[in-house]
Amino acid sequence: MSSRRRIAVIGAGYWGPNLARNFRASTDWELAYICDLDTERAQRVADSVGGVPVTASLDEVLADSSVDAVAIATPARTHHPIALAALDAGKHVIVEKPLADTRAKGVEMVERARERGLVLMTDHTFCYTPAVLKIRELIADGYLGDILFVDSVRINLGLIQPDVDVFWDLAPHDLSILDFVLPGGLDVTSVAAQGADPLKTGKSCIGYLTIPLRSGGIAHVHVNWLSPTKIRQMVIGGTKRTLVWDDLNPQQRVSVYDRGVDLALQSKETADSQASNVSYRLGDTWAPALPEQEALANVAAEFAAAIREDRAARTSGESGLRVLSVLEAVALSQQVHGAPAPVATEI
Amino acid sequence: MSSRRRIAVIGAGYWGPNLARNFRASTDWELAYICDLDTERAQRVADSVGGVPVTASLDEVLADSSVDAVAIATPARTHHPIALAALDAGKHVIVEKPLADTRAKGVEMVERARERGLVLMTDHTFCYTPAVLKIRELIADGYLGDILFVDSVRINLGLIQPDVDVFWDLAPHDLSILDFVLPGGLDVTSVAAQGADPLKTGKSCIGYLTIPLRSGGIAHVHVNWLSPTKIRQMVIGGTKRTLVWDDLNPQQRVSVYDRGVDLALQSKETADSQASNVSYRLGDTWAPALPEQEALANVAAEFAAAIREDRAARTSGESGLRVLSVLEAVALSQQVHGAPAPVATEI
Amino acid sequence: MSSRRRIAVIGAGYWGPNLARNFRASTDWELAYICDLDTERAQRVADSVGGVPVTASLDEVLADSSVDAVAIATPARTHHPIALAALDAGKHVIVEKPLADTRAKGVEMVERARERGLVLMTDHTFCYTPAVLKIRELIADGYLGDILFVDSVRINLGLIQPDVDVFWDLAPHDLSILDFVLPGGLDVTSVAAQGADPLKTGKSCIGYLTIPLRSGGIAHVHVNWLSPTKIRQMVIGGTKRTLVWDDLNPQQRVSVYDRGVDLALQSKETADSQASNVSYRLGDTWAPALPEQEALANVAAEFAAAIREDRAARTSGESGLRVLSVLEAVALSQQVHGAPAPVATEI
Amino acid sequence: MSSRRRIAVIGAGYWGPNLARNFRASTDWELAYICDLDTERAQRVADSVGGVPVTASLDEVLADSSVDAVAIATPARTHHPIALAALDAGKHVIVEKPLADTRAKGVEMVERARERGLVLMTDHTFCYTPAVLKIRELIADGYLGDILFVDSVRINLGLIQPDVDVFWDLAPHDLSILDFVLPGGLDVTSVAAQGADPLKTGKSCIGYLTIPLRSGGIAHVHVNWLSPTKIRQMVIGGTKRTLVWDDLNPQQRVSVYDRGVDLALQSKETADSQASNVSYRLGDTWAPALPEQEALANVAAEFAAAIREDRAARTSGESGLRVLSVLEAVALSQQVHGAPAPVATEI
Repeated sequence: MSSRRRIAVIGAGYWGPNLARNFRASTDWELAYICDLDTERAQRVADSVGGVPVTASLDEVLADSSVDAVAIATPARTHHPIALAALDAGKHVIVEKPLADTRAKGVEMVERARERGLVLMTDHTFCYTPAVLKIRELIADGYLGDILFVDSVRINLGLIQPDVDVFWDLAPHDLSILDFVLPGGLDVTSVAAQGADPLKTGKSCIGYLTIPLRSGGIAHVHVNWLSPTKIRQMVIGGTKRTLVWDDLNPQQRVSVYDRGVDLALQSKETADSQASNVSYRLGDTWAPALPEQEALANVAAEFAAAIREDRAARTSGESGLRVLSVLEAVALSQQVHGAPAPVATEI
Repeated sequence: MSSRRRIAVIGAGYWGPNLARNFRASTDWELAYICDLDTERAQRVADSVGGVPVTASLDEVLADSSVDAVAIATPARTHHPIALAALDAGKHVIVEKPLADTRAKGVEMVERARERGLVLMTDHTFCYTPAVLKIRELIADGYLGDILFVDSVRINLGLIQPDVDVFWDLAPHDLSILDFVLPGGLDVTSVAAQGADPLKTGKSCIGYLTIPLRSGGIAHVHVNWLSPTKIRQMVIGGTKRTLVWDDLNPQQRVSVYDRGVDLALQSKETADSQASNVSYRLGDTWAPALPEQEALANVAAEFAAAIREDRAARTSGESGLRVLSVLEAVALSQQVHGAPAPVATEI
Repeated sequence: MSSRRRIAVIGAGYWGPNLARNFRASTDWELAYICDLDTERAQRVADSVGGVPVTASLDEVLADSSVDAVAIATPARTHHPIALAALDAGKHVIVEKPLADTRAKGVEMVERARERGLVLMTDHTFCYTPAVLKIRELIADGYLGDILFVDSVRINLGLIQPDVDVFWDLAPHDLSILDFVLPGGLDVTSVAAQGADPLKTGKSCIGYLTIPLRSGGIAHVHVNWLSPTKIRQMVIGGTKRTLVWDDLNPQQRVSVYDRGVDLALQSKETADSQASNVSYRLGDTWAPALPEQEALANVAAEFAAAIREDRAARTSGESGLRVLSVLEAVALSQQVHGAPAPVATEI
Repeated sequence: MSSRRRIAVIGAGYWGPNLARNFRASTDWELAYICDLDTERAQRVADSVGGVPVTASLDEVLADSSVDAVAIATPARTHHPIALAALDAGKHVIVEKPLADTRAKGVEMVERARERGLVLMTDHTFCYTPAVLKIRELIADGYLGDILFVDSVRINLGLIQPDVDVFWDLAPHDLSILDFVLPGGLDVTSVAAQGADPLKTGKSCIGYLTIPLRSGGIAHVHVNWLSPTKIRQMVIGGTKRTLVWDDLNPQQRVSVYDRGVDLALQSKETADSQASNVSYRLGDTWAPALPEQEALANVAAEFAAAIREDRAARTSGESGLRVLSVLEAVALSQQVHGAPAPVATEI
C-alpha cells in the first residue's frame, strides 16, 4: 500500500523479533528488512513473520532510499553509531531503551536528529501499556490533583547482568514511566541513590533511588534482583486521590482511592495548631476497565504518527536522554554514599 | 501470692489500659496501682481490670516500699523524669517506646539504671509477637544464613501527629525489630534519610531510611502516613534463604523462601566472567505455624524474668537507646538532604 | 432518661456479654438485668458493663413491669419456652439466632408474638454489618439489576459442634443474609443439600446447598469445617452488575463489577443462532467506602425502632422462621441423597 | 533420526497449532503432516513450525505407512469417525478432550483401540502441568493420607458456547484431574448436578456437581460462565494434610497445610461424647517448588512412551471415557432436578 512507510529492524536478538512482528502487523508500516550480522538469526525472524528480505549489511539498508525508518534493537553500546548513521542517511529512528550507554552519546543523537529534522523516538514500551496510558490520562485530566509522591517497587529474583547494575537494568522502566505520566515530565535537579552489593558481584544488586519532585513531593524507586517474591507496584499520591498500579494483579491493575488527608488552609496565627485542621477522606475505590492491547502495537502507531504529524514522539529522544541523565546522577550519588547528586539538564 | 512482684502502671491514656490488663493477668505480677493525674481516667482503667488502687501521686507510688517496679505509659517527654525518679526510688522500670524524646535523656536513664543495678526495659511490644519471635529464632539458628538485606514497608493512611514526624511515629517499630532479630543488634554507624512533606504540615509525612549493615548489606525502611492502602511487610534476605513477613496476612504471616542467587567463589583471574558463575535456587516455600499469643503478655513475662535472673531484658534500655540514636541521625541526615549522617554509639 | 426502654439480657454465656455491652451503650435502651442461672457468670458480665442488677430468676425479670423487652442468648433449645413466657408477660423479644431448634417451635413463637401484638426479632447480627447493609441498599436501588445467582462460601477449620452439623452451625448466616438482601426475601420452595462426614463424626462436616431462586437463577452455599484456609465470600450476580463480598479483605470488602454477559432479545426464528447475540461488558470496578460500625449497635437500634414504630423488625421472627424452614428441608434432602426437598412456607 | 515416530496433526483450528509446535519440538516425534480441509489454515500452521507437508486428505495421511500416529484436534463430533479410521489404518491415536461427544461413541473408540492393540490417549493437557503432576505424586506417596474431600472452583466470565453447556465446557478439566490424581481414579457410581440458566440462553451457564467418593468423602465442582472474577482453585483434604491448588497464584500455586481435625478412635460406649475427642493440628504450611514446563511437551512425551512401552497412557482412552460417563450422568441428574443419577461404568 503506497501510504505505508517502510521500516527496517536492525538486530535480531531478544527484542528484534517483537519489533518485527508488530511493525509487520501494523497498517502504518511495511517491514522492509531484518538486518543482523548473524544472517541465520535474521532469517529465523524473517520466517516467523512470513518472509522479509534479510541482510547483514547496515549500509545496504541505509542506502535503500525506499526505507523511511529504522528500528534499532542492538546492544546498548552500539545504539549511538547506528543511530547517527541512520539519521545521516535521512532515516527516522526508533531505539530500544536505553537510548545509549552514556548520556554524552545520547546528547549527540538528540542533537543530530534535531539538525536533520527527523524523528528520534525511544522505545519505552511500558509507557504504551493500557495501564500506563490510563494513568497518564487520569493525571492529565486532574483526577488525582497535584502529585505529592510516587513510590515504585520493582523487585524479583533477577538475572544478574554481566555489564550493568540493577539501576541500569530495572530503573529505566520507572524513570521513563515517571517522565511519561508526570505533567512536567522527569524534570528533576538532583537524585540520591543507595546501592548494595551484598553478594560481592562487583555491582549493585539492590537499589534505592530518591528524587525530589519540584512540587515539594518525592519520588522513590526500589529495584532489587535478590527478592524471592516479585512485586511490580507504583503508588501515585495526589492532593485529590491516590492511585495504586499493581501490574501483577490482572483482575485489578489500576485502583484509584478517594482516600486521603485533607489539610485546611490556615493563617499564620494558627500554624502551631495544625494537627487539628487535618481531616480524612475515606471514600470509594474505583478500578477503571483497561482494554486488551499489545503495547508494542501502540509504539509502532505512535512512531508513525510522530513522523506523519512532524512532531516529537510521546517518548522522544529527549525523554530517553532524561532517563540517562538520572542514571548518571545515580552512579555519582552512589560514589558519595547516597548524598544527592545533580542531574544534568542542559544539552 | 508472695512470689509475685508488685507493679504500678503510670499513665492511663492510650497504652496504660493494655499494660494494666496484661500485668493483671500475669502470674508473675501483682498490679499495685494505676497512677494518673486524671484520677477519673485512672479509675476507669482500674475498674476494667476488676479493681486496683488509684492515685494521682507518683510520689505515693514511689514511696510504697512494697512496689517493685513501675510501667511508664505517659507522654514521651515525661519518660525521663519519671524513670529517673523511679530508679532513684529503687524501682525496676519498663518504659513505653520511645525510651525518651531525646537521645541525651535516654543515655541518662540507661546510666542511672546501671548505677542502681536495676532493670530498665523498653516496651518494644512488636518484638514479642509470635512472628518476630520466630524470625529471631530462625536467624539465630542460622536458617537464613548471613543477612544480606532487610526491606521494611510500614505505610497506611495515618494520623498526622501534632508533635512528631512519620519517622518518630512509625520507624521505631522497624528499628526495634531490627535490633531484636539481627545477630549483632542495630549496630550501625550511619544512616541516610529522605523525608517529604508534600502537604506542608511542617513535618515529614513520608520517609525513606537507608542503613548500611556491617555485613555489606543494607537495611531500608519506608514509612508513610499518606498511603491509601496499608502495608506491613518486611523482607529479610540471607545467604541461604529469604524470609518475608507480611503482618496483614493472618493465614501466612511468615514465609521462608528457599530461593536465591548463588555466586560461586572465584579467583581474581575469572573476575570478569562473573556472570557465568551465578546460579539460581528455586526451592520450596515454608510457612511456620505461629502460636496465638498476646505480645504484651510476653513483655510482662520477660520483664519479670529479667529482674528474677538479674540480667538485661531482651529489649533493654540500651536497645531503646540504639533506636533513639538512629532517629537522631535521621533528623540530621534530613537536614543535609539525605546525605549519610553518623549514628552516635558511645554512652 | 425516661424515653429509654428497659431490657434484660437472659443468658451470660458466649453471646450475652456482647448484647449487654451494646444495649448498655445504646441511647435507646437502659440495661435492666443480667439473668443467668449461674449468677457468678452473670455478675462478671454485669461488672464488665459497669454494674447492673443480676438475677438467677427469669420469673423475677418477667414480673418486673418496668422491663419492656428481653434479649435471649441461651442455648437454642431453650429459646422457645423463654420467648413464650416473655411474650406472655407482655415483653418484646429479641432472640439470638437460630430462632429455635425446630421449625414447629419457631412457628409457635411467631404466632404468639402476633397474638400479643409484640415485636419478635431474630438477632441475625451479620445483616447489620456495614457490608451487608450496603449490599441490601444496592440491590434495593436496582443497581445490580435482577438477581441471577448467588454463590456463598463460608469455610474454615472449624470447631466440630457436639449437637449440630455444619449446616446448622454456619448456613444460618448465609440464609439470613439472603433473606435480608434479596428483594423478595428467602422465598423458596425447595432446596437440595449434599453433606459429607468423611471423619465419621456422626454429622455432616462439609455441606453444599442449592436453592432455586424464583427468578430462574440459583443460590448456592458451601459450608465446611475441614478447610485449612478460611474463606468468607459471596458473589451476587445481577442482570446489570455483579457484586463480590470478600469479608476477609478489610481494604476492599465489597466490589461491584460492571462486567457481564448481555444477551440480546430475539425472536423465535433466530433462536438457534443465540451465541451470536451474546456480548460482553468489561466495565469498571467500584468498591464503595463502608463506615466503621459495630453490627450489634445497629441491632439494638433496629429493635428499638421496630417497637417504637410498631412494625416488624428488618430481621423479624418470620425471617428466623424462614431460615429454620430451609434448614429442615436441608435435613430432609440429605436423607434422600441430595434430591430436592420442599421448603415449608405456611404458618 | 530413525528412532523418532512420525505423527500427523489432524485439524488446524484452535488447538492444532499447539500440538504441531510441541510435536515438532519433541525429540520423540517427527511431524509428518498438517491435515485440514482448509489447506490455507493448515499451511499457516505448517509455516509457523518451519515447514511441514500439508494436505486436505485424511485418506492420504492414513494411507502413508510411514505415519505411526495421529493427533486429532477437530470438532468433538468428528473425533469418533476420524479416530476409528485411524485405528483401522493401524495408527496410534491421541484425541483432544473431550474424547467424543457422546459416551457411546467413546466406548466404541476404546473398544476398537483394544482390538487393534493400539494406544488411544486422551489429551487431558492440564494433567501434565507441573502443579497437577506434583499433586498426583504427593497423593500417591501418601503425603495427604486418605482423601476426604475435593472442592474445585473454575469460574470466570466465559464465552457462552453455541453447542455445549458450562458442564461440558469446563468440568472435563476438573473431572480428568480427579481421575488423574485420585488413587483409584474417577471411580464413582453416581453424581448430582444442579445447573442454572438465568439468562435464558437455552443451556446451563452455572453448574454445581457433587460426586460421592467411595471413601465416604465428597468431590464438588463449581463451574460458572457468569462470574466477573476468575477463580481456579482446588482444595484436596486428606486425613493427614490438606492441599490447596490456586492456579492463578504463580508465586505459590500449590500449598500443603499440616492443619486439620483429628478424631480420636473411640469405643461405642463413648460415642455420644465424640466432640471431646476432636483435636486440631495447626502445623506448618509448605509450598513445593514447581519446575517450569509446558504441559503439552509432557503430553507428547507420554504418548511416545506409552507406544514404546506398549502400555496405556496415563490419560488413556478409558480415562476420557470416565469423564464422558460422568458428563452424561450430569445431564441426567439435571433432568431430575439434581437428584443423584447413576454413572455408567461397564463398557
